[in-house]
Amino acid sequence: MSARGNLVVGQSGGPTAVVNASLVAVIQEALRHEAIGEIDGMRFGALGLLQEDLVDLRRVSREILEDLRRTPSAALGTSRVDLGDDDVERIMRTLKAREIRYFLYIGGNGSAATALRLHRLAADLRYDLHAIAIPKTIDNDLVETDHCPGHPSVARWLGVSVREAGLDTEAIGTADPVKVVETMGRHTGWVAASTALARQREGEAPHLIYLPERPFATQQFLADVERVHRERGHVLIAAAEGLVDERGQFLA
Amino acid sequence: MSARGNLVVGQSGGPTAVVNASLVAVIQEALRHEAIGEIDGMRFGALGLLQEDLVDLRRVSREILEDLRRTPSAALGTSRVDLGDDDVERIMRTLKAREIRYFLYIGGNGSAATALRLHRLAADLRYDLHAIAIPKTIDNDLVETDHCPGHPSVARWLGVSVREAGLDTEAIGTADPVKVVETMGRHTGWVAASTALARQREGEAPHLIYLPERPFATQQFLADVERVHRERGHVLIAAAEGLVDERGQFLA
Repeated sequence: MSARGNLVVGQSGGPTAVVNASLVAVIQEALRHEAIGEIDGMRFGALGLLQEDLVDLRRVSREILEDLRRTPSAALGTSRVDLGDDDVERIMRTLKAREIRYFLYIGGNGSAATALRLHRLAADLRYDLHAIAIPKTIDNDLVETDHCPGHPSVARWLGVSVREAGLDTEAIGTADPVKVVETMGRHTGWVAASTALARQREGEAPHLIYLPERPFATQQFLADVERVHRERGHVLIAAAEGLVDERGQFLA
Repeated sequence: MSARGNLVVGQSGGPTAVVNASLVAVIQEALRHEAIGEIDGMRFGALGLLQEDLVDLRRVSREILEDLRRTPSAALGTSRVDLGDDDVERIMRTLKAREIRYFLYIGGNGSAATALRLHRLAADLRYDLHAIAIPKTIDNDLVETDHCPGHPSVARWLGVSVREAGLDTEAIGTADPVKVVETMGRHTGWVAASTALARQREGEAPHLIYLPERPFATQQFLADVERVHRERGHVLIAAAEGLVDERGQFLA
């Protein structure tokens, strides 16, 4: 870190239990660096820069930051905007006019792509900008990360909920013996796989898990369900949203 | 309570967080009465009597009963069966053959109806039977009860979840400003109304609640949503499953 300048930070995409913890970490680290002048937050993600709707994060008290670290949802507000080239250029003009050298964006794949576009445009313009994407997504699908901060809370919630749903299905197996839980996770199976985390004994839910990393075969699925139903009288299935068939076509 | 005889208890319909607490209460109370001989549990509701699949509840230890009191789901297993007249007569023959004078059924509307049918058939046959329905339902819609035991846990869960969903909707109101949470509750609004229980300040979710006790008017609904969206930028709506239009037709 070398260039003197201001910093702007934003949150983007679906809020998770920990995006405010990432925001607090950015503010606390930024406060330690003399090269950084203003520390501003974008209201509702990139919209905050397009509409110059920013909040002064240096004025947030230490006590509020401590509370914010443990508060779910996204304190700055988030958005899902498809930025056109015009938008990106307008954001770059705002960054330059405000002497912002640090652009930090907490989000998923889309936010990382936005940071990359700003980085490339700044390089073309020979403007010294540090554009940094901070992983947020629950999907745990960002390469170069050990795990994404949004993933563990989702994994914990799904593990417990699927175990509960399994106990319900076991109790009422005579009437509603088959339950399917569809999980998020985009093209990866991390979220679907996490439904198994609260299993405590052999035979507990989920009994079958289908991940996008392997093609879904309908006949095999039906045979699997029939086998578990015969053995246990009830079946709980976890299916990832990104399931594809043998030809790579999405199932849902 | 006068007639000497055996007791049978069952659980029916969807399990809740507290149907096992009701079961434990039945066992513990029954243990105190000398008029009661065997205390048996029906496996999977009335199916347990049809198939003579019963478990001896006198053999369950005091320690297990204490644990069971706080364990969700339905320990005996439940069912949803439409009993024909033949089934009811077969159950009555089993009750008589086993000298069962106490039939206790933990469940909702269907279970109460089953207990009533057995009561009437026993009266016709001049068989001394105490057929007792124990309220379970989350819907809180059984008359003559102050509240149904299944309702408070659902109310608590929905209150917290709708508040969380409201914080999410507020954070991402620029992209997904309107969210509808459909609740259970059959023909009553108790469950939908309970979504408001965790509100802590003016303007928190849910912003609009629609109950079956009043007809749903589409134009008014659209005007309500538009007004809240104009005021707050986001809207969270709780809608009961039993909503009807002005002609009394179900909406879903």
